[in-house]
Amino acid sequence: MSDVTVIKIAIVGVGKIAQDQHVPSIKGNEAFELAATVSSRDGLPGIENHAQLTDLLEKRPDIPAVALCMPPQMRYEAASLAIEAGRHVLLEKPPGATIAEVQDLVERARAKNVSLFATWHSRFAAGVPAARAWLAERMIRHVRITWKEDVRRWHPGQAWIWEPGGLGVFDPGINALSILTEILPEPVHLVQSTLEVPDGRQAPIAASLRFRGPAGLTVEADFDWRQTGPQTWDIEIGTDTGSLSLSKGGAELTIGGRREMTEADVEYAGIYRRFAELIDAREIDVDLAPLIHVADAFMLGRKITVEPFEE
Amino acid sequence: MSDVTVIKIAIVGVGKIAQDQHVPSIKGNEAFELAATVSSRDGLPGIENHAQLTDLLEKRPDIPAVALCMPPQMRYEAASLAIEAGRHVLLEKPPGATIAEVQDLVERARAKNVSLFATWHSRFAAGVPAARAWLAERMIRHVRITWKEDVRRWHPGQAWIWEPGGLGVFDPGINALSILTEILPEPVHLVQSTLEVPDGRQAPIAASLRFRGPAGLTVEADFDWRQTGPQTWDIEIGTDTGSLSLSKGGAELTIGGRREMTEADVEYAGIYRRFAELIDAREIDVDLAPLIHVADAFMLGRKITVEPFEE
Repeated sequence: MSDVTVIKIAIVGVGKIAQDQHVPSIKGNEAFELAATVSSRDGLPGIENHAQLTDLLEKRPDIPAVALCMPPQMRYEAASLAIEAGRHVLLEKPPGATIAEVQDLVERARAKNVSLFATWHSRFAAGVPAARAWLAERMIRHVRITWKEDVRRWHPGQAWIWEPGGLGVFDPGINALSILTEILPEPVHLVQSTLEVPDGRQAPIAASLRFRGPAGLTVEADFDWRQTGPQTWDIEIGTDTGSLSLSKGGAELTIGGRREMTEADVEYAGIYRRFAELIDAREIDVDLAPLIHVADAFMLGRKITVEPFEE
Repeated sequence: MSDVTVIKIAIVGVGKIAQDQHVPSIKGNEAFELAATVSSRDGLPGIENHAQLTDLLEKRPDIPAVALCMPPQMRYEAASLAIEAGRHVLLEKPPGATIAEVQDLVERARAKNVSLFATWHSRFAAGVPAARAWLAERMIRHVRITWKEDVRRWHPGQAWIWEPGGLGVFDPGINALSILTEILPEPVHLVQSTLEVPDGRQAPIAASLRFRGPAGLTVEADFDWRQTGPQTWDIEIGTDTGSLSLSKGGAELTIGGRREMTEADVEYAGIYRRFAELIDAREIDVDLAPLIHVADAFMLGRKITVEPFEE
């Protein structure tokens, strides 16, 4: 049976992604009501704000769900408090700063019988389900990922992305890996990783990865944060019976040169539809595969120092 | 029912660890017979050698098990060939160069119904089982790991340890983490990591880690490869009812200041006893926790460049 009560939800961390995506997606979904925010700085106009998550958890026991949108380095602490307080938790991507902490959250959520949703927004891009279905019946030969964007445009003033745990160019790159791991019928593993790190920074500004999979499948991925002008978020796949491409981050699907579908800005609507289902069923949806590939890329990475990055 | 047939086994990669530990441990275990080696250079006196693993697999179908002792960067390729050929596989530590490739081996071993054993030799140190049992009944407050050794003494001429995938000081440090994850009743996760990387090298020569666990538990670990003179492999643990220490890599156990046990060089004998059990039961024993902590330490690591290392 579906729960017809509207689910009150609070957003924790009201930075760019919360304002651009989470607020409108929650407001556009009848299953949810945006009841409060948590931010140590300003909240949002017309919405109750708490300076601390502990305040919210204490004062608003009627809010059963939280969406955690702060930088990944602070996500574990907040998630474990919320789970301990019996709340359902949505995690922005990446779900944490380490693999082990996300595994730990899964155990805690299980013990408290609450939902935990590690979101990968790019998996909700319009072309992804059809790409997955088409690939399921084919022998995949080669995948080429090109994920190039302008860090100044997408991450203005976000110092945390260059700090340990901020992941650098893997912050967007993990979106490509989340699509890859969703649409391939069988897993791949990293065999080579080159990380370009600006002099004086901790995180890479570019990365070049090579994966292998079953039956000779190879995947090449190029991530770069130095692209000005048009932005590129493309995945091209060659199979035994034709080729497929996902472009615009998965919003456009082309098969055998023919455009199958184009639909922008559906990702976060899909995320909140899924979160409502998970809460209704008290289920956990945490796939660590994209984060594991990123950790592997750091562990196996050959580091090259490149020119300093000045914002 | 136990299988009383002696299990023929081949060692692949006959470097230092194979000669120091695997050969005598196999010879000292009645369940096994060392039937061959694989090495592109020289084999061992009096033992049949094959230059390539594929030769061994083709020419000796009567050898059902292999122990893979080559550097981790080459382990996946060999393991997947051996599994594909229906052989039981023992992996030296670390089990691979990436987390994803080891997960993949587990799936392949399952599909072929062969045993796969990701060994963590330090878990077989004499004091570990008793430490685990003693800690299971206590509230653990603090763990301090000091793992300091002389890289020139233990890894002479091993260029691979400084290359991507060689893990640097985590090659010994992962032994400490394998004990930690074995003896703690609940998991911990990394919250801080500092990596000291020699100028011009890819892998850290020292690392300082901080973990957190349940109920305020903290773990501090210091790994250093620059220690000359006496070598230090110590784990000290404070609990609500007394303290415990494991020293000499787990060979010595002291509880409340009283020496409980000292026994050196039992690790690999324990590994081969376990491998015989796993083969008999067609079981898989792969715990990724130590490798996950290392990958997390690279992903979350703050890197500091230190003076060049010259062998």
